[in-house]
Amino acid sequence: MNKQEIPDIIISRLPIYLRALRHIQGEGKLITSSQELGASVGISAAQIRKDLSQFGEFGKQGTGYDITFLIDQLREILKVERVWNVAVVGMGDMGHALARYQGFSDRGFRVAIVFDNDPAKIGGQVGHFVVRDTKEIVTAIRKSGIKVAMLCVPAAAAQEVTNLLMEAGVKAILNYAPISLSVPAGVRVQYLDPSIGLQRMTYYLD
Amino acid sequence: MNKQEIPDIIISRLPIYLRALRHIQGEGKLITSSQELGASVGISAAQIRKDLSQFGEFGKQGTGYDITFLIDQLREILKVERVWNVAVVGMGDMGHALARYQGFSDRGFRVAIVFDNDPAKIGGQVGHFVVRDTKEIVTAIRKSGIKVAMLCVPAAAAQEVTNLLMEAGVKAILNYAPISLSVPAGVRVQYLDPSIGLQRMTYYLD
Repeated sequence: MNKQEIPDIIISRLPIYLRALRHIQGEGKLITSSQELGASVGISAAQIRKDLSQFGEFGKQGTGYDITFLIDQLREILKVERVWNVAVVGMGDMGHALARYQGFSDRGFRVAIVFDNDPAKIGGQVGHFVVRDTKEIVTAIRKSGIKVAMLCVPAAAAQEVTNLLMEAGVKAILNYAPISLSVPAGVRVQYLDPSIGLQRMTYYLD
Repeated sequence: MNKQEIPDIIISRLPIYLRALRHIQGEGKLITSSQELGASVGISAAQIRKDLSQFGEFGKQGTGYDITFLIDQLREILKVERVWNVAVVGMGDMGHALARYQGFSDRGFRVAIVFDNDPAKIGGQVGHFVVRDTKEIVTAIRKSGIKVAMLCVPAAAAQEVTNLLMEAGVKAILNYAPISLSVPAGVRVQYLDPSIGLQRMTYYLD
């Protein structure tokens, strides 16, 4: 299977399916259907079958999906059967919340190092972490081999910090800063600017 | 122009254009091009022209876009030329961060009321707000006419709180809880689960 051939939009739905499958599994079920899964995520059963068929045969007509098997397959496809160490840059309210966030465990991620450029914060404690100086980003991240970062700095600092993360070898950024980042080809960015999320909905309101 | 005719995917890009235009405006420029705008958001100039053409004629071939005019038009299309009051439910780390977030001003939103169900938090202060009891959601939100909410409660409580928000008349939810929500037709949900954002990128990593 060639990665280039599977559209981004399909990949973007797989984590939603995975999360829903775990939820259904948590209810004690062993088998699910594309109908049940679809109802729980608001996506049509046909779309789900089509999406999953890109990666192989995960269920049989009439018998449904073995939940544990499908979860394992999706984790492997998304490469979250392993645990990725993640750097968090910017220890304001949002970075603070992410450094202490309990929701990453069991979903493939672990915050491993946190940075800030404020002398009043550097060396201090956030959750289990001692805050490192952003000046150490390149050396510390290179040393640890971290490929994933969450960016929670103000917009004005975001591109500069991104450049450091690129130099450090980071390949994926979850960006909370309210600005579009410029990154080299092959580097992924996902944007979690809350104002953008809100503005995507107000268009539809009366 | 019929709202049903414009695909969601186009609407979802407009806030990105708006944010980038403001950034370019902040650099002191008065005129921009689809090329410049495209470079700053990582979207092709042709796509931007096509997206904007859905809503009218905003620029002329060869002269570019008047930035102030295009910003005003986009704000009007997205209905963020006004200010929407927003409720935040769940005063954990993430809700706390959102209640204090400075990035909503000037982008169409203002946190107006915050809720939690923890007796230790109810009546306490978060930022400028006194934390209200989640039991008051329906009456308080109905009274204030709020249509937009940010949901920061644990996954196990998210659907129950969503049901209250629906009863209160909320029509748009920015959901930080790691769970798909079931909402009636006509209600919009945007998901900001950080693990989903991360899982959408690891697929592409080596």
